[in-house]
Amino acid sequence: MKAPNPNFTSIDPAALRDFIQAAFVSQGFAQDDARTIATLMAEADLQGSDGHGVIRLPQYMKRIRAGGINKHPDIRVVHERAAMAVVDGDNGMGHLVVSRAVDLAIEKARQCGVAWVSTRYSNHAGPASLYARKPLQHDMLGLYFAVGNANHLPPWGGTDMLLSTNPIAAGIPAGSEPPVVLDMATTVAAYGKVKAKAKRGEMMPEGWMIDRQGKPLTDPNRASEGFLLPIGDYKGYGLALVVGLLAGTLGGAAMGKEVIDFNADHVSVTNTGQAILVIDLSAFGEVSHFKGAVDTLVKDIRNSDRLPGVDRIWLPGEQSHERRQAYQAAGIPIANSLIKELEALAGDLGITPLLQGAAA
Amino acid sequence: MKAPNPNFTSIDPAALRDFIQAAFVSQGFAQDDARTIATLMAEADLQGSDGHGVIRLPQYMKRIRAGGINKHPDIRVVHERAAMAVVDGDNGMGHLVVSRAVDLAIEKARQCGVAWVSTRYSNHAGPASLYARKPLQHDMLGLYFAVGNANHLPPWGGTDMLLSTNPIAAGIPAGSEPPVVLDMATTVAAYGKVKAKAKRGEMMPEGWMIDRQGKPLTDPNRASEGFLLPIGDYKGYGLALVVGLLAGTLGGAAMGKEVIDFNADHVSVTNTGQAILVIDLSAFGEVSHFKGAVDTLVKDIRNSDRLPGVDRIWLPGEQSHERRQAYQAAGIPIANSLIKELEALAGDLGITPLLQGAAA
Repeated sequence: MKAPNPNFTSIDPAALRDFIQAAFVSQGFAQDDARTIATLMAEADLQGSDGHGVIRLPQYMKRIRAGGINKHPDIRVVHERAAMAVVDGDNGMGHLVVSRAVDLAIEKARQCGVAWVSTRYSNHAGPASLYARKPLQHDMLGLYFAVGNANHLPPWGGTDMLLSTNPIAAGIPAGSEPPVVLDMATTVAAYGKVKAKAKRGEMMPEGWMIDRQGKPLTDPNRASEGFLLPIGDYKGYGLALVVGLLAGTLGGAAMGKEVIDFNADHVSVTNTGQAILVIDLSAFGEVSHFKGAVDTLVKDIRNSDRLPGVDRIWLPGEQSHERRQAYQAAGIPIANSLIKELEALAGDLGITPLLQGAAA
Repeated sequence: MKAPNPNFTSIDPAALRDFIQAAFVSQGFAQDDARTIATLMAEADLQGSDGHGVIRLPQYMKRIRAGGINKHPDIRVVHERAAMAVVDGDNGMGHLVVSRAVDLAIEKARQCGVAWVSTRYSNHAGPASLYARKPLQHDMLGLYFAVGNANHLPPWGGTDMLLSTNPIAAGIPAGSEPPVVLDMATTVAAYGKVKAKAKRGEMMPEGWMIDRQGKPLTDPNRASEGFLLPIGDYKGYGLALVVGLLAGTLGGAAMGKEVIDFNADHVSVTNTGQAILVIDLSAFGEVSHFKGAVDTLVKDIRNSDRLPGVDRIWLPGEQSHERRQAYQAAGIPIANSLIKELEALAGDLGITPLLQGAAA
């Protein structure tokens, strides 16, 4: 293990996954379920979505120990037609519920060409891109929508926080190029970025948040006095609303005032909603033709003339792709402050500490 | 007919539709096809989407007379599974091609719960919201994506205009409230708004466009020296790309360098692509329950506390809804300068002038 930055330690991805799995098993989760959750959480860190990976483990454990998660959920289909289903997650971990939903959508898309599966009574499931990417290995395209787990966004012109950062993600296969993977909150900044600024003692740029008078709010320690701004002003508000209606209301999950702030409340059933649309490329013509067209477009974009001072043009998902390859080889850099927190958690849960497991 | 603003004349919606229909018939279109196109174009003006209504008639006529549109297209399904289809528009008017695609998606959604139909060899079809709204009357939800008909957007950091304003639209049923209808370009401003500023001799606000040095461009007469900015910076770039892949590449339509600027080129086949996703609410549970949940959310949003200086909070589509009702009663206000242009066109085409038809 080596780390260029002394504040970080490189952790083997498999060791990270095993540590997370052990944490869930310690709380009575079945090995299989714990493995599924741990694999997805480690995958989040592996692609650099570090706000949604192992950093969430202490919070998840707190909720599980408080009884806010069903450890043995009966995840089941409650509505179904040929190209759609609604999956009731029975308040299980979101990773399990959404995985089931995506697998079902892939199966249905193989038959019908296209399929949509909504979840209800799900929970926080980590980065949206994990699920939008899952159909890629089947030469399918994924579109994913989710209701965020805390409302930080008011309607445009308003001050009641009725909306969340409701993300959109897409995973689109390419041929020789990495897939195009978009994963974006409908707010300028995700709330996790605000918390990260506070932790580092930095100020936020103007445009991330405003206060209740509509003035720019740049001190992240005052975040509770204001709210996030949507991308494109009223457009992002409309997009956050539509994503919430698709991912929440349509499947019978929480939206608007019903959304539970899962950072503050560890017990109430969140009734989180997500939705996945899967499109089987082979239904639309030759898959190789589609992939070739994406490759050409990707190359044209990458080779575009650039604005002064711009070194490189990135495709959506390309930075995550490079990180995944680098971290797979050299380990995932985890902040030492987080490792300290995880080692304390390990003691608490009675499991092998992360660094001890990684060294084994 | 009365008009509060002396620069506008109120035109009866049916008279506007009949005028447009006559224009297409004069060029050899079948009455039925001309009627479908005219109804949709007049509907655009009726809801205030005046950049996509009768204002486009001179341009459409120019393209038709130049041979750039197939007047008698063989619009047909070229790929199909239970929940999807690809419709080849045979270079017909986009309004006809997309109408066929939406009708087919509605039919398939009734069976499968969800359906996706892509178009290829289509053309400009007017405002996205027209098509996203169409499923509403069947208690279905519509999501619409389109490739714009001219590239004005480079990748983030680049200067090659490889992307268009690729819009997203959604039509979501409510109960007693108007439906939630989103229709947004993925750029801060649509290019039509830039042209409108130039026409009125006004400057653009900073944030709409930049020049090739990356500096704000505010003079709309210099628009050709710069490009539009995406919403949320790199996020809007990613969104425009994904929308283009979904609406264009997936169905085998033009994207990137293949996109024809239909303002400058009246002859080349545009191979425009659109895509519609239709979701049948009844597959997801009680329709009345869904509509009630949307009503509640709409009311919570409208009744939100407001920022200082904000008189009212709007839902997406609410302003169009109010305009539609007002114009239906009092006529559609059409700029006198446009009427003059249309009367000249009528003379050219040998059809009854608009004002004469409206007075009849």
